[in-house]
Amino acid sequence: MTSDPVRLGVAGLGRAFMLTLPAFQADPRIRLVAAAAPRAESRAAFERDFGGTGYASVDELASDPNVEAIYVATPHQMHADHVIAALKGGKHVLVDKPLSVSMEDAERMVAAAEESGGHLIVGPSHSFDAPVALARRLIDSGEFGALRMVQAFNYTDFLYRPRRPEELRTEEGGGVLFSQGIHQIDMVRLLCGGQAETLFAMTGNWDPDRPTEGAYSALLSFAGGAFATLTYSGYAHFDSDIWMDDIGELGAPKPSGGYGAARSALIGLDAESEAKLKTTRTFGQGKAPAKATHHEHFGPVIAICDRADLRLTPGGVEIFADTERRFVEAPVGPVPRQEVIDALYGAVRQGRAPAQSGHWGLASLEVCHAILTSAETGAPVRLGRQCGLNQEEIEHE
Amino acid sequence: MTSDPVRLGVAGLGRAFMLTLPAFQADPRIRLVAAAAPRAESRAAFERDFGGTGYASVDELASDPNVEAIYVATPHQMHADHVIAALKGGKHVLVDKPLSVSMEDAERMVAAAEESGGHLIVGPSHSFDAPVALARRLIDSGEFGALRMVQAFNYTDFLYRPRRPEELRTEEGGGVLFSQGIHQIDMVRLLCGGQAETLFAMTGNWDPDRPTEGAYSALLSFAGGAFATLTYSGYAHFDSDIWMDDIGELGAPKPSGGYGAARSALIGLDAESEAKLKTTRTFGQGKAPAKATHHEHFGPVIAICDRADLRLTPGGVEIFADTERRFVEAPVGPVPRQEVIDALYGAVRQGRAPAQSGHWGLASLEVCHAILTSAETGAPVRLGRQCGLNQEEIEHE
Repeated sequence: MTSDPVRLGVAGLGRAFMLTLPAFQADPRIRLVAAAAPRAESRAAFERDFGGTGYASVDELASDPNVEAIYVATPHQMHADHVIAALKGGKHVLVDKPLSVSMEDAERMVAAAEESGGHLIVGPSHSFDAPVALARRLIDSGEFGALRMVQAFNYTDFLYRPRRPEELRTEEGGGVLFSQGIHQIDMVRLLCGGQAETLFAMTGNWDPDRPTEGAYSALLSFAGGAFATLTYSGYAHFDSDIWMDDIGELGAPKPSGGYGAARSALIGLDAESEAKLKTTRTFGQGKAPAKATHHEHFGPVIAICDRADLRLTPGGVEIFADTERRFVEAPVGPVPRQEVIDALYGAVRQGRAPAQSGHWGLASLEVCHAILTSAETGAPVRLGRQCGLNQEEIEHE
Repeated sequence: MTSDPVRLGVAGLGRAFMLTLPAFQADPRIRLVAAAAPRAESRAAFERDFGGTGYASVDELASDPNVEAIYVATPHQMHADHVIAALKGGKHVLVDKPLSVSMEDAERMVAAAEESGGHLIVGPSHSFDAPVALARRLIDSGEFGALRMVQAFNYTDFLYRPRRPEELRTEEGGGVLFSQGIHQIDMVRLLCGGQAETLFAMTGNWDPDRPTEGAYSALLSFAGGAFATLTYSGYAHFDSDIWMDDIGELGAPKPSGGYGAARSALIGLDAESEAKLKTTRTFGQGKAPAKATHHEHFGPVIAICDRADLRLTPGGVEIFADTERRFVEAPVGPVPRQEVIDALYGAVRQGRAPAQSGHWGLASLEVCHAILTSAETGAPVRLGRQCGLNQEEIEHE
């Protein structure tokens, strides 16, 4: 199975790549063979570390015959051009969430994937986290009856992490919806079967210095009758990780004494200095994230079924059944995000697309936009571009 | 101040009375002088314990010239008749939540209070809990800027506590909305200023053996721009008290090994036996609840302000501010529900009505009905009978 690794090219060597790199490096099913990045230092670091080829443009990368698949980890607003170039070059694509900012771009990418016959996978997202997949399997088992209601919430310091200016402009994909809401939507859609029907939402845009959505709450119904609440705040106050065993989003224990660190780091910085601070978190510059002891997660999630509630934790799923309460562990592998490699390798080598396809990503993006629309109009939004799970493919993990 | 206690009569000696009795007994500002109850054993127990007069009907109690105020703690559907009888008898009234089941009854009671000039207070409810009042004072202080968003949720075994048959029929006030939702609505309205504007909600009615709403989720906007999510499940699986320091609703530590107790106690019982089991929890029959070490509470509540998030706990309020995280304790008095006595005594002896007036209770009831209506129609509901806080009166506590 590992005698024939997927020859992967990477478009964009920023923070997203940094976070997925350990999975690429540790997994014999992947070989990093090329990259595209506008910054020469990043390309040099890539060539030094992996012996592959560094290109200045994604078009060049997409023309490299040695590359089979491309991980597109460039800023949101560039996804469409880069994904379409990769697909036209005959490559399979793993594109970082969100698929795009605009629905038009998303539709173009989905059409390009259909035309090229290449796989288009949207990830990593927290819907790949092992406890989410475990919860999905527990629901599928039928042991607990129908899924009825999901509550997902997350309170983070997202809005105060170092940002490029466009990351604070909603129309360019800034704010919490496109970068953070999309995770929650992906997770909740995976648990609820994917086919969202109606949504009502309110959003918060409360800091004039960072004038984009920093919070939202949404109520969402699904085909089959389940409904879900999704709540998020990126305003860096309450930290819901205290209810996730003090494990951070990336699976590592939270450092003690770190309260308020995100805001403090920004004090006195202008927009340029802040954008520069962000580059210290890209490949070849920053330090690697703290060692994960648990799975990645995206905040507390409770899924109510007829005969049990499932509580997702960074280690697995706690089952609150009719008469007993028990914990089912999701074993932690040597590196995070192995589930994403499962999906990529499964698609490229075994022809098994994961649930998180291009159409899936488009459907999650539709929910993002619906949250903004509902908040603006004060009316519920009917969703029209949803897609369900391919059950068989979820269960193989 | 305590030389002239309020001479209180009690209508209904069931579970609600049992839970408030310790506050009445411990507080020198209250003297229990009479009661009305249909069951002779309850009346006898009352006369034996308090030396007052037991009446078979509320009309007789309302005619007792020695009674100044009446605590109406009869089943929901009887509130209107009992409250109006008490007001017509010239008494002040403390009526257990919800004010009533129907809006028509609520309007009649509010009109009767206006006509009689007597105080009508709706309580106890969890909006009286000291940490809620403390959070309200912290918001009022202005230190943290505007209140923006509230998230309140609670997962309990409510639906599986012993019930009379009508408590499982929504149209008679059964299900989680009128008994439990009303607490959450009261709390959230108190934090958000009272004036709810628009609501969207979904409800769950998932156990055919207990065919009434057992869960809901609602999104609610307020005058001034804040919004709130309210989520509840009474299906006895996940227990959100694990996020409230393992302190139960009544302020006592949760017994270990009690998981699933509510469902287990019902196994094999028919409706009649179940209703009978409920009477073991009324005055003169059951044992007193476990000793409270903390304040009563109604599940996790997070209130987002511009410069801090407030997390309500059974002991006070944890403040997550820009650069520091600190805890403000709400001192625990010798008995629970002292805040309700504050309100009753303040109204009867000092002419200071609390926020939780008849109109307040009517406004909370309107939100209950709006949740049912929105869930049924799939449309948002505009609220039209809301009322705000009387700031001065909230702050005196």
